Amino acid sequence: MYEELRQKVCQANLDLERHGLVVFTWGNVSGIDRSTGVVAIKPSGVAYSELTPDKMVLLDLDGNVLEGSLHPSSDTPTHLELYRGFEQIGGICHTHSLYATMWAQAERQIPCLGTTHADHFYGPVPVTEVMTGDEIEQDYERNTGKVIIRRFKSPPRLLAEDKSGGVSPRLSAGVPRPLAGANAPAAAGAVDPLQMPAVLVANHGPFTWGKTPAESVENAVVLERVAQMAFGTFFASARQGAISQALLDKHYLRKHGQDAYYGQKGNHI
Amino acid sequence: MYEELRQKVCQANLDLERHGLVVFTWGNVSGIDRSTGVVAIKPSGVAYSELTPDKMVLLDLDGNVLEGSLHPSSDTPTHLELYRGFEQIGGICHTHSLYATMWAQAERQIPCLGTTHADHFYGPVPVTEVMTGDEIEQDYERNTGKVIIRRFKSPPRLLAEDKSGGVSPRLSAGVPRPLAGANAPAAAGAVDPLQMPAVLVANHGPFTWGKTPAESVENAVVLERVAQMAFGTFFASARQGAISQALLDKHYLRKHGQDAYYGQKGNHI
Amino acid sequence: MYEELRQKVCQANLDLERHGLVVFTWGNVSGIDRSTGVVAIKPSGVAYSELTPDKMVLLDLDGNVLEGSLHPSSDTPTHLELYRGFEQIGGICHTHSLYATMWAQAERQIPCLGTTHADHFYGPVPVTEVMTGDEIEQDYERNTGKVIIRRFKSPPRLLAEDKSGGVSPRLSAGVPRPLAGANAPAAAGAVDPLQMPAVLVANHGPFTWGKTPAESVENAVVLERVAQMAFGTFFASARQGAISQALLDKHYLRKHGQDAYYGQKGNHI
Amino acid sequence: MYEELRQKVCQANLDLERHGLVVFTWGNVSGIDRSTGVVAIKPSGVAYSELTPDKMVLLDLDGNVLEGSLHPSSDTPTHLELYRGFEQIGGICHTHSLYATMWAQAERQIPCLGTTHADHFYGPVPVTEVMTGDEIEQDYERNTGKVIIRRFKSPPRLLAEDKSGGVSPRLSAGVPRPLAGANAPAAAGAVDPLQMPAVLVANHGPFTWGKTPAESVENAVVLERVAQMAFGTFFASARQGAISQALLDKHYLRKHGQDAYYGQKGNHI
Repeated sequence: MYEELRQKVCQANLDLERHGLVVFTWGNVSGIDRSTGVVAIKPSGVAYSELTPDKMVLLDLDGNVLEGSLHPSSDTPTHLELYRGFEQIGGICHTHSLYATMWAQAERQIPCLGTTHADHFYGPVPVTEVMTGDEIEQDYERNTGKVIIRRFKSPPRLLAEDKSGGVSPRLSAGVPRPLAGANAPAAAGAVDPLQMPAVLVANHGPFTWGKTPAESVENAVVLERVAQMAFGTFFASARQGAISQALLDKHYLRKHGQDAYYGQKGNHI
Repeated sequence: MYEELRQKVCQANLDLERHGLVVFTWGNVSGIDRSTGVVAIKPSGVAYSELTPDKMVLLDLDGNVLEGSLHPSSDTPTHLELYRGFEQIGGICHTHSLYATMWAQAERQIPCLGTTHADHFYGPVPVTEVMTGDEIEQDYERNTGKVIIRRFKSPPRLLAEDKSGGVSPRLSAGVPRPLAGANAPAAAGAVDPLQMPAVLVANHGPFTWGKTPAESVENAVVLERVAQMAFGTFFASARQGAISQALLDKHYLRKHGQDAYYGQKGNHI
Repeated sequence: MYEELRQKVCQANLDLERHGLVVFTWGNVSGIDRSTGVVAIKPSGVAYSELTPDKMVLLDLDGNVLEGSLHPSSDTPTHLELYRGFEQIGGICHTHSLYATMWAQAERQIPCLGTTHADHFYGPVPVTEVMTGDEIEQDYERNTGKVIIRRFKSPPRLLAEDKSGGVSPRLSAGVPRPLAGANAPAAAGAVDPLQMPAVLVANHGPFTWGKTPAESVENAVVLERVAQMAFGTFFASARQGAISQALLDKHYLRKHGQDAYYGQKGNHI
Repeated sequence: MYEELRQKVCQANLDLERHGLVVFTWGNVSGIDRSTGVVAIKPSGVAYSELTPDKMVLLDLDGNVLEGSLHPSSDTPTHLELYRGFEQIGGICHTHSLYATMWAQAERQIPCLGTTHADHFYGPVPVTEVMTGDEIEQDYERNTGKVIIRRFKSPPRLLAEDKSGGVSPRLSAGVPRPLAGANAPAAAGAVDPLQMPAVLVANHGPFTWGKTPAESVENAVVLERVAQMAFGTFFASARQGAISQALLDKHYLRKHGQDAYYGQKGNHI
């Protein structure tokens, strides 16, 4: 039972290493069976070369271990908070991948500077607020999940302190209008986690997610690539702005919209 | 029939991955049989590991599928527009390769900063104008081809808005005088697509081409390398200018001119 | 005798190459048996591909060769000085790894800019003072060890000359308060070498250490990664400051503190 | 006859690819038998995967082909000029390696910023003057050799035009005093090619050399690495100066001086 879930989560963790996103044990992927609320996650501090499906730890959404003799990832409370807050997601990935972490450390969002980004992320990849001392000292990992969700429910305006000369705003700016349709967020100014399956936790690193564990890893690969591209773009054009709403819509929707025509499954030209 | 074309196009697509130019399925190569006007192109969204010659899609220059059960690359209308506009080319390659895409996102041309560049590209690698909302919303992929061709038929002057402090002009500057001979462009100020087998589509990424599909990929490799070299050059010398016309001519012509003496086939010293 | 020490030191040297930290023979690892004071170290200038445990050179802490027909690493006096000065360490690693060396050459410490750094190093990775002509001309390698130890025993304040516009202070600033417990340094302002198992020797490169030779190499890998991350962070946010004391404590202590809960051995949530 | 020379030159060319210094056929190595004045060099435009010792082209110092059915590298006249001008060298290597070429394109020397550099190159790696139109149009490849030699015989002073804000001077500055001994250059201000076995040809790329073809490739590897390190160093400390004369002497001489004690052959501590 849950054999398929264990298998998929294990494979997604192994893919982190294959894609060059991790050093040592610096990353973890989980998956959830939404019908039962059972979550499978990597055990803490175990090398990827030693991972097998039976070593995945099974928990319920309250964090009770259901099966597994190993301790779950220390980031488990963050994963659980995200599964509770973002009800449509089925897999979560956390890494300290090189370029995405640079932006997270700089407390800067990654603006949508080109179609590579627009093909996968609908607007700037957001950065969370810096966590307070209280949020860090008590329930740190769970609060990490809470600051992510807060960032999506009601994006902050550009703050007064953000005059520090960085190439990109520290918090939100230029969030595109929500797309119409099933995934549209309820509240004005909110970000839909399926249209934006990535976040940078300030001073820390990226979390990505998707409908499956594999998709969360794919989004981590894309995030790392667009994070790297953003550096060169700002080097060559220090005040480069986001691409037009028309180009963002075109690229995002030709892959993800109702009339998508990219790949073998959508409607085609 | 068209077996050789399928084979060459398939191999050229596989070479994208071997040269590290693509992530996932972010690139496509096509080839054309000029005697019949038949184009072979990669199917949309299919992994390189699953590509075989029989999966290549065959189309005519109007975009009608002649053979193949898979959908062609969503960028197909761009390829077809280029084959119609640049009549001497036999293969086209599109990637989101890392460093070339940075320049494209920055809306900056890549000046000819050294002999590595001059050995392959006769002058600055041009960047297109930013596409308008109308060009994006209707016939986007075909219009992508049109803005490329427009850029080659009549290069824009440096625009008034381009005071934004980038290390390289946004549009054209320093286009070298056309070379004499068969490939010389008809119109004053035009760029010959065989002397400049590469372009950066603003906010998007590079397209390259050549006499064959393999040559279009080779040019993509070279473009990526000179794009990367340009970053360090501008870091070390922020106002670095293009190399002299004499050095550009010497290097371009010793490989590509009538009296070329590089390699085993030209006239040698 | 000392077979296990030879074996571990040899393996740790081979790991330098596997982790991409060295070119040619530019790195060396040693280990010590504290019960006898016997040190094993890589022979000088021997290629990693030719290293075997029996080629490790055994010395006492005064530098007398006990076993081995090859000359020990020319950096041996630095290693010995560190073993004498830092009595809790069991292995030392020296490389010219790319990104750490850049910071060393720039005479800049690496501030703690994120949790990747805080997970392993408690505060900024210090840089030594520039060595004087006298220190270089007489007993250079031993004096290299002395300037490292001096840096840890009594960290310098930010010097008047350090107005040169670098992204990070040349010498110390923002040293966190010492952690309570067994490893706390005696003198006010001192740095505990087990809480900070890395240093940048100005104009030269990094030394790292740990309880074992393997741990010294692991710290070299982490240092290289955080050194690279610091570059992008400062590019995106030129005046980025260190993370909060609360976040530093949280991450360092959840891996290394008395109540650590990362991995499979600590107390878990 | 000359079988050993062919073998060594072939292997050195293959090593270019192994060390990641070349793309396609962008590099060539030669070697000379000083007793007869016979030079072996890579054939022009031949892929490294197809190189075998019998394909090496043998020439005399006047450029007459002695053996070989293939055309020699188009850079052959540069190699021959260097063999005539620098009588102690036995092998020459030319690449367009990534980071060294960036400095060459920027027309900037690479200052000696650390001990990695000082271990191999005695002072700043020089950059040539920009070649004139006349030098390019007539006998280009031979003149490339001439501008290199001119740079070593009598280093230019810092020129008035060099106010362009680069991180390093365009031409010479901070050339260290010549070392005493057999290799000391005759003229005041001259650079000894054995103490400085590398040069950057402005707008082009690096040439390196050594006592053997293998040593010329080793120097190309080191040059590439110190070129990359210099970028990060200047990013972190924009006005970073050269290391002290004492540190330069110490590191250069402990590997290359009369009393060298690095490796297994010198005098040891």
